Amino acid sequence: MTETVASVDLDKIISLCKRRGFLFQSSEIYGGIASTWDYGPLGAELKRNVKDAWWKTMVWGRDDMVGLDSAVIMNPDVWRASGHVDAFSDPLVECKLCHQRWREDQLEEHKCPDCGGELTDTRLFNTMFKTFMGPVEESASVVYLRPETAQGIFVNFNNVLNATRKKLPFGIAQIGKAFRNEITTGSFIYRTREFEMMEIEYFVRPGEDEEWHRRWIGESMRWYTDLGIDGERLRVRPHDSEELSHYSKATSDVEYHFPWGWGEIQGIANRTDYDLKAHSDASGESLAYFDAGSGERIVPYVIEPSAGVDRAVMAFLVDAYTEEEAPKASGGTGQRAVLKLHPALAPVKVSVLPLSRNERLVPLARKVYAEVRESRLVQGYVQYDDAQSIGRRYRRQDEIGTPLCVTVDFDSLDDNAVTIRERDSMAQERVPIAGLSQVLATRLEA
Amino acid sequence: MTETVASVDLDKIISLCKRRGFLFQSSEIYGGIASTWDYGPLGAELKRNVKDAWWKTMVWGRDDMVGLDSAVIMNPDVWRASGHVDAFSDPLVECKLCHQRWREDQLEEHKCPDCGGELTDTRLFNTMFKTFMGPVEESASVVYLRPETAQGIFVNFNNVLNATRKKLPFGIAQIGKAFRNEITTGSFIYRTREFEMMEIEYFVRPGEDEEWHRRWIGESMRWYTDLGIDGERLRVRPHDSEELSHYSKATSDVEYHFPWGWGEIQGIANRTDYDLKAHSDASGESLAYFDAGSGERIVPYVIEPSAGVDRAVMAFLVDAYTEEEAPKASGGTGQRAVLKLHPALAPVKVSVLPLSRNERLVPLARKVYAEVRESRLVQGYVQYDDAQSIGRRYRRQDEIGTPLCVTVDFDSLDDNAVTIRERDSMAQERVPIAGLSQVLATRLEA
Repeated sequence: MTETVASVDLDKIISLCKRRGFLFQSSEIYGGIASTWDYGPLGAELKRNVKDAWWKTMVWGRDDMVGLDSAVIMNPDVWRASGHVDAFSDPLVECKLCHQRWREDQLEEHKCPDCGGELTDTRLFNTMFKTFMGPVEESASVVYLRPETAQGIFVNFNNVLNATRKKLPFGIAQIGKAFRNEITTGSFIYRTREFEMMEIEYFVRPGEDEEWHRRWIGESMRWYTDLGIDGERLRVRPHDSEELSHYSKATSDVEYHFPWGWGEIQGIANRTDYDLKAHSDASGESLAYFDAGSGERIVPYVIEPSAGVDRAVMAFLVDAYTEEEAPKASGGTGQRAVLKLHPALAPVKVSVLPLSRNERLVPLARKVYAEVRESRLVQGYVQYDDAQSIGRRYRRQDEIGTPLCVTVDFDSLDDNAVTIRERDSMAQERVPIAGLSQVLATRLEA
Repeated sequence: MTETVASVDLDKIISLCKRRGFLFQSSEIYGGIASTWDYGPLGAELKRNVKDAWWKTMVWGRDDMVGLDSAVIMNPDVWRASGHVDAFSDPLVECKLCHQRWREDQLEEHKCPDCGGELTDTRLFNTMFKTFMGPVEESASVVYLRPETAQGIFVNFNNVLNATRKKLPFGIAQIGKAFRNEITTGSFIYRTREFEMMEIEYFVRPGEDEEWHRRWIGESMRWYTDLGIDGERLRVRPHDSEELSHYSKATSDVEYHFPWGWGEIQGIANRTDYDLKAHSDASGESLAYFDAGSGERIVPYVIEPSAGVDRAVMAFLVDAYTEEEAPKASGGTGQRAVLKLHPALAPVKVSVLPLSRNERLVPLARKVYAEVRESRLVQGYVQYDDAQSIGRRYRRQDEIGTPLCVTVDFDSLDDNAVTIRERDSMAQERVPIAGLSQVLATRLEA
């Protein structure tokens, strides 16, 4: 079994994703809608698993973190105070001939790339989606779809502090959708207008911010590698000073080596006290921490590890995708495609396969399937798969990343045992049906 | 211990929710934004638990269901074909004096309820939020925020069928945000403009639809009662014929008895083949099921159990809230407020409480806390609580619905055992620290 180290072909992954039900082009029967994707049955499970793994590590796994789930549509004053109404803009030019618009900072020449026409002067285009709340479409009722979840955390700082009485340093974590009306989108689910974020605002004493910034870069990297991402394909890239956002003292990106090159999957910013101060000033409500020791009110500094859910899904998919030589049932070797996903992320945890649709096998296989599915030990989606030959089913399960297959064969009728087949090693082991769920659960957690 | 059967006071629950960090008014420091709420640390956990419980039962727990996670912003042709652009409207009137707008069907008199002014004729107001995708705000770039998640399922019917090869009857389940620009909102998180839904589209053979409609009404009711909702406070209410949506052959609501009366928490509609046919006609893509047995292509009928996440959260909160007499540590009895939430829903599964902040107790209590938190056996949020007297901490944990408290006292230093205190019975039991997580896990699942 030798692994092919060739670089991964993005089209192969997109094709697999559609064929197996990870991702579909959104509204496909209507010709789609630019750069929008729907998660199919397996994609929905994978994305759930990514978010759950993050929440378990970052919220349940720490004693200095609490969760939050704030609304997408907030009072527009939030976005005025945060600087987004003024500063969250792309520089655009328009072609005077064909009226196509372009991001000025991404053009190499000052001629329209489509028709060669002359371009207008640059004007700023705010990338927040706006809509109207209430029955009248007028300026007074304009609201925005949040372009980040972070502000929902900042404006709730006092509420969270009062309810939880947390001491510095502590963090507030949130997972949710955000929307940016980007001009340039693409690379599958890497850059889309609607996306999901996993964000932490971690509040520390001023002066301790640089140390915590370093720590959170480490924690962030560890999360990906603990879930199986190849460390060689990850790097940390500090922003240049001219690249920094208006609120940031320092930012480092965690980048993954995608088929088209290095791309950001997470940013870790030192936002200082910018946001809490901005909202204190704008709202007139002091957002500060009372330090019982010194009797002082402190405006904490904020370290923000901010990760894209869809980008994480994509990195996990790309990283897991493997083509390798494997022995064939008919003898010799052949190619197989395997998604070597961490068991915690795999969309299907266990597939139960009767050797055939034989009428004596099926009732036992169905019984085994029901027992595993209903067991509280095996958490996650469990599948029953009886279509086509057993060899083809193993290949299909490999391709969707199922860590363990359970095969029910004719011997099972006599020995009350089944075969567990492991995805990566393809090793097979005979185990009794009694206690099967416990064995599967232990293997999935190993 | 006698239970007070007095009807629940909504204001008490709202106050508890804010004080303990279940729900905060969104953008509160900016005066809020109409009927929008943010889930605080405990609310975020409760809401997660409600959604997880639903997914486990409806998707992982069945062999006829797969998941989906489609985008909020879809191609606008979807909403033209579904009938939402034309038919998803409220009849509004405007006061000629003060210009306040009202839903005509909710007015008792034809005078403005605010100022008594004369009202205009009725005009239809579409309750979909609209926004613009791309750099130009023009009619060609209008898109909508989905007012229901269902259409994301219908337009993916072929994609899901091709990827999963499911046989009729089968369902597609989805959880996600939806947005409706309602004129009338209120009753805390019961009626908001931004909300989350848990929807199933269950595809059946025509002719089997009425039987499946009945079954899904039963399944829906069972989900709430299995999670502890009092069956006396639930009822099924079939819609009158004039109340039915344009796509529905029959709809029944599951209603909960809220403090203000009966209110819908779930609808179960027989949508017939309306949606699949509408999208087939509009897109030119046949959305049908090939029946290998008969060789026919069938357009399935659809049963839609559609539940509100936020309404479920609210029903669980109201139903769990109990005030009762309980013995006090100092002798005699006093009132306690308890959230008798099902352990699967409780935001905090276990709280570890050192008897005091004594320097010999704290290290052991911290160690017990870390072990329980890191154990894979106890899934969920685990808390450490050392503020104030042990009696007050029990009351606080009761009020947030923590099923089990673990108390570390001075005897623990000698006997390596702790006390488990059960929320509802207040019974206490001494158990060894070794194996504690297993005991807790078993109790939580009982």
